[in-house]
Amino acid sequence: MKDSENIPAMMQELGQRAKAAAAELGFAPAAQRQQALEAAADAVWANRAEIIAANAKDLEFGRGKGLSDAMMDRLMLDEARIQGIVDGLRNVAGQDDPVGEVLAEWDRPSGLNIRRVRTPLGVIGVIYESRPNVTADAGALCLKSGNAVILRGGSESFHSSGMIHSCLVEGLKAAGLPEAAIQLVPTRDRAAVQELLTMTDYVDVIVPRGGKGLVGLVQREARVPVFAHLEGIVHIYVDKAADPQKALYVVLNAKTRRTGICGAAECLLIHREIAEGLGADLIRALVEAGVEVHAGAGLQLDGTLAATDADWGKEFLDSIIAAKVVEDVDGAIAHIRAYSSSHTDCVLTEDDAVADRFFERLDSAILMRNASTQFADGGEFGMGAEIGIATGKMHARGPVGAAQLTSFKYLVVGDGTTRP
Amino acid sequence: MKDSENIPAMMQELGQRAKAAAAELGFAPAAQRQQALEAAADAVWANRAEIIAANAKDLEFGRGKGLSDAMMDRLMLDEARIQGIVDGLRNVAGQDDPVGEVLAEWDRPSGLNIRRVRTPLGVIGVIYESRPNVTADAGALCLKSGNAVILRGGSESFHSSGMIHSCLVEGLKAAGLPEAAIQLVPTRDRAAVQELLTMTDYVDVIVPRGGKGLVGLVQREARVPVFAHLEGIVHIYVDKAADPQKALYVVLNAKTRRTGICGAAECLLIHREIAEGLGADLIRALVEAGVEVHAGAGLQLDGTLAATDADWGKEFLDSIIAAKVVEDVDGAIAHIRAYSSSHTDCVLTEDDAVADRFFERLDSAILMRNASTQFADGGEFGMGAEIGIATGKMHARGPVGAAQLTSFKYLVVGDGTTRP
Repeated sequence: MKDSENIPAMMQELGQRAKAAAAELGFAPAAQRQQALEAAADAVWANRAEIIAANAKDLEFGRGKGLSDAMMDRLMLDEARIQGIVDGLRNVAGQDDPVGEVLAEWDRPSGLNIRRVRTPLGVIGVIYESRPNVTADAGALCLKSGNAVILRGGSESFHSSGMIHSCLVEGLKAAGLPEAAIQLVPTRDRAAVQELLTMTDYVDVIVPRGGKGLVGLVQREARVPVFAHLEGIVHIYVDKAADPQKALYVVLNAKTRRTGICGAAECLLIHREIAEGLGADLIRALVEAGVEVHAGAGLQLDGTLAATDADWGKEFLDSIIAAKVVEDVDGAIAHIRAYSSSHTDCVLTEDDAVADRFFERLDSAILMRNASTQFADGGEFGMGAEIGIATGKMHARGPVGAAQLTSFKYLVVGDGTTRP
Repeated sequence: MKDSENIPAMMQELGQRAKAAAAELGFAPAAQRQQALEAAADAVWANRAEIIAANAKDLEFGRGKGLSDAMMDRLMLDEARIQGIVDGLRNVAGQDDPVGEVLAEWDRPSGLNIRRVRTPLGVIGVIYESRPNVTADAGALCLKSGNAVILRGGSESFHSSGMIHSCLVEGLKAAGLPEAAIQLVPTRDRAAVQELLTMTDYVDVIVPRGGKGLVGLVQREARVPVFAHLEGIVHIYVDKAADPQKALYVVLNAKTRRTGICGAAECLLIHREIAEGLGADLIRALVEAGVEVHAGAGLQLDGTLAATDADWGKEFLDSIIAAKVVEDVDGAIAHIRAYSSSHTDCVLTEDDAVADRFFERLDSAILMRNASTQFADGGEFGMGAEIGIATGKMHARGPVGAAQLTSFKYLVVGDGTTRP
C-alpha cells in the first residue's frame, strides 16, 4: 500500500506508470495478453481462499456500515462466484484480439494504399461500486484491448478487489507484461477519484460503472473524456397492432426476469385503443406476477397504485413498473424523448410502418422490436464480456466490449509517391 | 442580427433551436439534405457579387487591424474562390449519404437480428478562424451527416461568412428543412465562444479548426466533447535503407508543395549512417529549393542555420524545416514520441522490418511510408470533403469527413423473443 497522505502525488505516479505501460502494451503481441489473462484466471482460482478471507473483511466492514441486504449480496464472494470470475477471465482471454485488426483497406488513384487499423485507446480509468468482480472484468477487457487501466473500486470491496487485483498482476508478470498495465488505486480516500477524473495528461477516458450518483459525479467533475453510462430508463410501447401473446411474454420477461439490471423495463406505454383489452391483460398479468404497477388513467385496475408524475423517467430497479396510455406511436415517441435515458427502448407491434417510425424517430443506443429489453447486454449481442452499456453518442455506444475500448490509426504506403 | 448585449441568452436560444432542428434532421431523407446543399450552391453563385461586396468590408476591417499578407490572402474571396465554394458544396451534396447506413448486421442464437446503423451526432459546434469558405465547408459536412451545426467564424470574416451563411439558409428553405439546421453566431463578441464551449445541454461536440491558440483555448475551456485538431508537427524519418531518389522526391514535395498546410513536413530525422551521404544531398536540395534548414550537428552544411532546442516540435507552417541526425529507427521513434502532435509522421525506407517497427510503435493518426505527408487530407484519402484532421483518439481520428461526424444505434428485431 502506498502513502495515501499525498493523494495527488500518488495518483500522478499511477498515471505515469500507466502511460508507460500503455506504450508497451500498444505493441505487445495478442498471445502475450491472452497468456496474462489465462495466468490471472489460474491465480484467482489458486487464491480463492485468500480472496474469500479478504471478502470476509469487506463484509464485516459493510455490516458495520449498515449496508442493505442487496448491497451485501453484491459484495459477497463465494467459491461459485469466484468460479464465475475465473470463467469471465478465460472467456475474455479466448475472444478475438481486437488490436491490429484491419478495419478497412483501399487503394487510391494516387497509388497510395491506405489501411485503417485498430489501436488501443491508451489509459482507461474505471470507477465502479460495490461488486468486486468488476475488478477482474474491467481489468481483463482493458488488457484485451491493449489498454492500461487504473481501477478504482468501491470502498466496500476494498480488500476483495485488492486480492483479485494481485491475481491479475500475477498474470501480467507470468506473461512478461508490465505490472502497471492493471493498477488498482490503493486507497479508499475519495480525493483519489477527484484526481483520476482530471488527470488529462495520463488518462484517455473514464468509464464510470455504477448508479446515478456515481455517474452524475463523474460527468460533472471529469476533465478527461467519459463514456457515459446513464441509468436504464427502459420503455416498452405496446402498439394497437401488437400480438397479444408475444406482448405478454415480452413484457413479463422484460420486467420480471431480473429487476436489478439496467435492461429491465421500467415503463409500459399502451396504445389508447387497446388499453381496455390487451393493456388490461398485461397489467393484470404483471400484478399477478407480483409486480407493483404504478398505473396512469385508464389502467388503474385492482391491485395497482395510481401513478404520479414522479413515476415517469424513473429507474425503479425493482419489481415496480409505471404504465401509461398514449395516443399512438407518436405519443409513445414523445414520451420516450422526454423521459428516456437513451439506453434501450422497445416497440411491440406487427405493423412494419409503426416499427420503422419508432426506429427512425428515436435515438436510444438500443431500439428493439418484439424482443425483451433484458437482451440489452454485450454477451447477448455476441460481443463477449462488456464493461457496461454506454448511453452517450461519442465513441462507444451500447454494450462496451473490448472492441469499443479501441481507436484506430491510418497506415499509408506509397512508393516515393508525391502529391501534385 | 440579434441583440448581442445578452450573449448567454442569445447562445442558449441558438442552442435550443439547433437541438430542435437536429431532432428533425435525424430522420430527414437523404434526398432532402442533398437538395438543400445543391440549392445552397446555386444561391452562393447567384449571390457572388453580394458575397464579394461583404468580403470587401472584411478586407477593409482586416487592413485596419493590420493583418499580415498571409492572413489577408486567406480572408480574400474572388469569383474563382467562390466557384471553389460552389464546387465544394456540390461535391459534398453528391457524396454517399452516411445516415442510416447499416454498419454491421448479424443474427444471434436467441433468434434476434441486430443491426448497427449510422446516426447523426446531434448538434455540432464549429469554431474557426479567418477563412470564410469554412462556413460553407463545415455547414455542408454537418448537414450531409444529418447534424445541426452552430458555426462561429473568425471576427475578420464576419461579413463574408454572414453572406455565405444566408445562402446556406436559402438552400435549407428551398428543401423544406429547418433554417436552424445551420446557424451562424451573429456576433463578434468572444463571450459567445465561451458560451458555446459549455452548452452541454445543446451541443454534442465542438470541432475547433484553426491555429494552436484557438485549439488550446477550446481544449482548456470546453465542457462539451472536442474533436481535437492539434497542429501538424510532421516528421519524416529517412532510414539508412531509404531509396535516395524516392527520398528526394518525397522530402521536397512534403516540405515545399504547400508550406502552410498541416500535412507539410516540419522535421527531418536522418539515420546516422547516411547523414553524410543522402542526408547531405537532401539538405542541399532543400537549401537550393529556398527552404531555410535549421540543421542539427552533422548536417550543418552551407546555407543552413544551426538548429536550437526550440526547433524540435515546432510547426513552422513556412518554408523552414528542422533536421537532425538520429541513431536509427528507434531514435526516430523516440524523437517523434517526444515531439510529434500525433498528426502525421512518415518513414522513408525499403526495409520492411523498419517500416513495420515504425508503424507498430508509433501512434500518430496517420503513419506513412515512402509517401509525401502532403497526402494527409480527407480528399486524398477518398473521403470527399473534410472538416479537419483530428489528432485525438476519441471518436474521430485523422481526416474528419461526413462519416466521422456520425454515431450509431442498434436496431434489434425479435419475434416475441424472451431471455431465458
